[in-house]
Amino acid sequence: MISVEMNPNIIRNIRKVEPYVPGEQPQNRVVKLNTNENPYPPAPGVERVLAEMDTDRFRLYPDPSAAKLVSALAEHHHVGEDQVFVGVGSDDVLAMCFLTFFNSEKPVLFPDITYSFYKVWAELYRIPYECPKLDGDFRIVKEDYRRESGGVIFPNPNAPTAIYEELDFVEDILAHHPDEVVIVDEAYIDFAGRSALELLGRYNNLIVVRTFSKARSMAGMRIGYAVSNPSLIRYLNDVKYSFNSYTMSQVSIACGAEAVRDQAYFQKTIQKIVETREWAKEELQKLGFEFPDSRANFIFARHPRYDAGELFEALKKQDIYVRHWDSERIRQYLRITIGTREEMEQLFAALRTYFKNRT
Amino acid sequence: MISVEMNPNIIRNIRKVEPYVPGEQPQNRVVKLNTNENPYPPAPGVERVLAEMDTDRFRLYPDPSAAKLVSALAEHHHVGEDQVFVGVGSDDVLAMCFLTFFNSEKPVLFPDITYSFYKVWAELYRIPYECPKLDGDFRIVKEDYRRESGGVIFPNPNAPTAIYEELDFVEDILAHHPDEVVIVDEAYIDFAGRSALELLGRYNNLIVVRTFSKARSMAGMRIGYAVSNPSLIRYLNDVKYSFNSYTMSQVSIACGAEAVRDQAYFQKTIQKIVETREWAKEELQKLGFEFPDSRANFIFARHPRYDAGELFEALKKQDIYVRHWDSERIRQYLRITIGTREEMEQLFAALRTYFKNRT
Repeated sequence: MISVEMNPNIIRNIRKVEPYVPGEQPQNRVVKLNTNENPYPPAPGVERVLAEMDTDRFRLYPDPSAAKLVSALAEHHHVGEDQVFVGVGSDDVLAMCFLTFFNSEKPVLFPDITYSFYKVWAELYRIPYECPKLDGDFRIVKEDYRRESGGVIFPNPNAPTAIYEELDFVEDILAHHPDEVVIVDEAYIDFAGRSALELLGRYNNLIVVRTFSKARSMAGMRIGYAVSNPSLIRYLNDVKYSFNSYTMSQVSIACGAEAVRDQAYFQKTIQKIVETREWAKEELQKLGFEFPDSRANFIFARHPRYDAGELFEALKKQDIYVRHWDSERIRQYLRITIGTREEMEQLFAALRTYFKNRT
Repeated sequence: MISVEMNPNIIRNIRKVEPYVPGEQPQNRVVKLNTNENPYPPAPGVERVLAEMDTDRFRLYPDPSAAKLVSALAEHHHVGEDQVFVGVGSDDVLAMCFLTFFNSEKPVLFPDITYSFYKVWAELYRIPYECPKLDGDFRIVKEDYRRESGGVIFPNPNAPTAIYEELDFVEDILAHHPDEVVIVDEAYIDFAGRSALELLGRYNNLIVVRTFSKARSMAGMRIGYAVSNPSLIRYLNDVKYSFNSYTMSQVSIACGAEAVRDQAYFQKTIQKIVETREWAKEELQKLGFEFPDSRANFIFARHPRYDAGELFEALKKQDIYVRHWDSERIRQYLRITIGTREEMEQLFAALRTYFKNRT
């Protein structure tokens, strides 16, 4: 129906971005080990809460403060309700953090190999940035962060390397940036170790960001949050309210709050994934793969004898999806999400067959 | 638990905004005529779709393209699927439009009295803007928009005035801005008249924005959308994907698509609200109120003898919530949402009592 030609003057003032390409979301049944989702369903209470939703009330705006969810999270982390900010997935929360806190002329620092959205948000908001290189073992070099900056952000564990750094490392970065905000993106912390949350009382420049998409099995509901001191959370809320007062739907608020409450189920799921991961490491080693030690729900692995791009395509042909980036330094790696034991068995069987046919 | 003092250097580089103050969302049972919600529940199919949701699949990311919802909307409006962009309420869609399309050095134009978020987004993104004044009858003066600009945005019907402008008016603005994007915010169009959608084939600078929060009774689910030509929609999607690939939850996509399908229910609900509105106009007139003729689901009314701020407070004390802004030019007006006939009766009874006690 559109027949009019586009006017180049209109195009001139449009913000152009290099869009992030998310992992594929095939809609058919496949072995899906490509976007670090949880292989187990969310807490059983979520189904009950959904069934009890009063759809007649959908006609009303949700509570803009998402108080029930904020309060469940505050209680869970033993912090004040004024220390929690919630958003539509941690991507929404992180993007709001970039917009709110990274307004210096000096560059924001994040690793060259890390969550690829950081660069995209910096470019979207025209924030200067620099990317210190990970070392040869894919570790963040803390000394590279001892310089003037407009802020720092890094995931811990880092993605896609799965490497976890202990809290003294996090503290070193916080201590060297007293005048800037430091964001620790803890999307995978539940599979890893101690959280930077325990440093909140000592560093007023710290923001810890979390997601419901990984350990909480709620990627489909879009919930993320930040924990910090009340002052930084207030600035974040001011920007959020000016952007869109009602971001969290009634359903996200209710289901999210319920998911937080069931700590026993949560711990059991994590335990299962960690056990599968440790076993998967052994199996991958037996198959000849090399990888940094993973503390997340995925393994970043290369094989010295097989091209990662070809492996990726071969697996895909068998409906086994892992993640591969055709980028410098990581071209020979696959990021493999930890699925159920059965899914991992299918992956390993496919790899064995592939290797056999190639030798 | 937070004992450390805030560092002024951290505060210096934080983006400060004047946050938008949304209408109150009282959680107890009140007569709620303050945020233009629909008094009737969403299409009955929504309850069924919610009941059929497979919560086990919440562990997976939603379809980033929200294809089911986009396709339902494309079919509904007889446009291509590449002409529809969806977001977390029309606030999300509009904010993305500001970020994507308003990047000129020249000011974006919107009325002085209009949806208050426009100004907030312009300031958030540091977009220059100018606000031509509505005339004495609260009408947009189209001649004021015949000047160089970085784009134009206005709601039709306008809010909070409820005044609808015919399509020749919209076309006049489109024709005078061939080189800029013109956004027509049709949040209330279903209560009003002909939509600018029918101009899409002739103007490549037009974007029409809609919401599920008003006529579709789905404020609680957060769904909005834009319809335009494939080229502008692609730019919008590029920015959206770079911001957050997965904004629409599985539940929003499923319930939203269902709500669009039930056209009969939709029309019936609108008809009831329009009938109540026409009757409410008569009643308000009998009570001595003055107001521009409303074509929306609210009436913007003043009483020549009673102070609007005092009326607002008096109604609130009786658990009847309407909207009042303590701003220049509109200080003596109340914005009254059209509720059910029973809710309007309660409002009128309260007003009668108030007037009686004050005379």
